[in-house]
Amino acid sequence: MKPEHEPHTCDASLARAFDFLGKRWNGVLLGTLVGRPATFSELKRAIVGISDSMLSDRLGELRGAGLVLRTVDEGPPVAVTYQLTSAGLALVPALRELASWAADNLPA
Amino acid sequence: MKPEHEPHTCDASLARAFDFLGKRWNGVLLGTLVGRPATFSELKRAIVGISDSMLSDRLGELRGAGLVLRTVDEGPPVAVTYQLTSAGLALVPALRELASWAADNLPA
Repeated sequence: MKPEHEPHTCDASLARAFDFLGKRWNGVLLGTLVGRPATFSELKRAIVGISDSMLSDRLGELRGAGLVLRTVDEGPPVAVTYQLTSAGLALVPALRELASWAADNLPA
Repeated sequence: MKPEHEPHTCDASLARAFDFLGKRWNGVLLGTLVGRPATFSELKRAIVGISDSMLSDRLGELRGAGLVLRTVDEGPPVAVTYQLTSAGLALVPALRELASWAADNLPA
């Protein structure tokens, strides 16, 4: 009978989600882009403690995963903005749930 | 006008959630306890790659944060089980959202 009573990880998806979003800054970066596009320097100001190279690295990773879109407006002046793709937007309900849970249940 | 157009991190709660749940194994451990209590050895079998000392360490951290409860049934035989507290259970909807999002949107 044992196998059916064994616990199992929620599934591999959850582990993937935490591996990816838990990676320093990724989750917070996506959270920061909820609701509006932002420029690199706006993101830098919004995310306390992130360095230019780290922000650049993480934006590249999020773009590679298809969650963030980089748009260049040739201007002048040239303006580069970052926004969530539909895959990134699909994360919003989970981010809201998580933030609300943490506010209520995680010791500060 | 700038301040009102600045993006901001979803809020400090989200950053705390990712700092905590993103810490290797914490999120997955909580996910594994969803729906049923488990013994140490059941958890060890369910979470591929975790060592005894890491599992013990993480269970201690989750208990310290009030998310996991350790129950000792004096028996005989003595049985020690771990289960989610109500604060831990409150995380379930967010975990489900996250797992579902990852299944649909995160490249494997």
